[in-house]
Amino acid sequence: MRAVARLVSLVEDGHPALREVMAALVPHTGRAWVIGLTGAPGVGKSTSTAMLISAFRQRGRRVGVLAVDPSSPFSGGALLGDRIRMQDHSNDPDVYIRSLAARGHLGGLSSATPQAIRVLDAAGFDVVLVETVGVGQSEVEVAGLADTSIVLLAPGMGDGIQAAKAGILEIGDVFVVNKADHEGADRAVHDLRHMISLADRAAPGNWRPPVVRTVAVTRVGADSLMEALDKHRAHLDETGELQRRREGRAVREIEQLAVERMRTRLESVEGGSGLDVLAARLVAGEIDPYAAVDLLLARADR
Amino acid sequence: MRAVARLVSLVEDGHPALREVMAALVPHTGRAWVIGLTGAPGVGKSTSTAMLISAFRQRGRRVGVLAVDPSSPFSGGALLGDRIRMQDHSNDPDVYIRSLAARGHLGGLSSATPQAIRVLDAAGFDVVLVETVGVGQSEVEVAGLADTSIVLLAPGMGDGIQAAKAGILEIGDVFVVNKADHEGADRAVHDLRHMISLADRAAPGNWRPPVVRTVAVTRVGADSLMEALDKHRAHLDETGELQRRREGRAVREIEQLAVERMRTRLESVEGGSGLDVLAARLVAGEIDPYAAVDLLLARADR
Repeated sequence: MRAVARLVSLVEDGHPALREVMAALVPHTGRAWVIGLTGAPGVGKSTSTAMLISAFRQRGRRVGVLAVDPSSPFSGGALLGDRIRMQDHSNDPDVYIRSLAARGHLGGLSSATPQAIRVLDAAGFDVVLVETVGVGQSEVEVAGLADTSIVLLAPGMGDGIQAAKAGILEIGDVFVVNKADHEGADRAVHDLRHMISLADRAAPGNWRPPVVRTVAVTRVGADSLMEALDKHRAHLDETGELQRRREGRAVREIEQLAVERMRTRLESVEGGSGLDVLAARLVAGEIDPYAAVDLLLARADR
Repeated sequence: MRAVARLVSLVEDGHPALREVMAALVPHTGRAWVIGLTGAPGVGKSTSTAMLISAFRQRGRRVGVLAVDPSSPFSGGALLGDRIRMQDHSNDPDVYIRSLAARGHLGGLSSATPQAIRVLDAAGFDVVLVETVGVGQSEVEVAGLADTSIVLLAPGMGDGIQAAKAGILEIGDVFVVNKADHEGADRAVHDLRHMISLADRAAPGNWRPPVVRTVAVTRVGADSLMEALDKHRAHLDETGELQRRREGRAVREIEQLAVERMRTRLESVEGGSGLDVLAARLVAGEIDPYAAVDLLLARADR
């Protein structure tokens, strides 16, 4: 566990040793089932995560949890309060829970998350739950990392409109209406099913995401949710979609790392073709941005 | 106006002619005052934008508005409803209002927005208002595009916590508590001032963001807001901060375009060093992501 914690810290920090670490871990990966869990603040992500941890532990599965907050580049500890609610599992040696801070600039999170997943996968966790706060585009990006994506909603939060707006219909493999004992749950389930059926007509033959009701705080609906997850996993295996998703994820990871490396190269160009000089000329109206890129790349490529 | 509309469409579509267009426009830019306006859904961004348009029009200024929704990669028309509320100005030839859709993948918006600003700047708009939905990191990115950033809040939305969490304290040059006739407005103003004073202590000597109260729907507080904006503009001019911000913006724009071009180059690599092949090998555990990047870049660089 200490080793896992240290390896995830190396990932967070973008430590130079990562290169060696990843090379050593890669041959031991590919076994973990990566499950994404996303939803707006207040829908009950942490209680749902706790419920899922218990359900997988009952099956004897080892569970790793990564809690990612892509909305907050400033406060790495934003999810700390939520973490505390998961303390039930804090003494279980087969459960590892970790917040992942979004340090550094754009792209930092995108490359850190797949690497952190790889650490947990190689460490032998059967299930890796990636919990993210649902906030538009970043949510969609993180969902792309999972084998199975759960989208969590709660009644009375203008679910329908929110869902359509944030594009979550496109990313959910399993939808959960949590707090199903609250007023408006039926309505939320109904609206969601209706929207899914509309989206389904556009893409027939694909997986039709089920809508599950839960009351995560009392563990009601845990069995239904697990059943829905199992069905999706079977679908992934039978259709070859698992391999396709993982390859797509690998494409994005490699591309992201390549872009980061090239960005470093761009920033190291100095003199008249340096970024600062080109930027000052652009502000002065002496050069257009495309010509600036030509000059910059001519030097960055050497 | 028709030409402006067509040019912004070229920007949105990432049209190949953009290169030529930007080269022609750049010498005519640098005069517009770029003002960012951001806030969570429901705080009154559109009514505040309408109020600002009127105030600048009373001074005889030509105003361009770009409404950007970075949270929604799927629905370009998400802000359409809001736009309708600005129809007061739809017959004024010195006001141009446009929604900017976030098409394409990551980075698409980041490079489109400065280019769209450039179009309006070159077209002779004295003020370019960039309105964005406040959603975490993307909001912070867009704020980086403005000379002056207004952060809009409304009472009773858990402002304090929200503010701290989304990092808006760092990006606001002028804070506005809109709906100041609602309960909790005093509290919101007080909390905000307190948080600003705490942040201020960490960075003394800098601009201390004022907090202005408005009721945008009845135009109450428009004068105070304009006064705050004028003060910030004077601060930008006197301290050289205007030039610094614009150069920072230009750096990011050039870098973004360079990264986009390099990404295209990466995706065009074929054969054994192609992204797809490398990704499949990564999933199979045969290669680590860094080694994959080495192979990819060796080919992309030719």
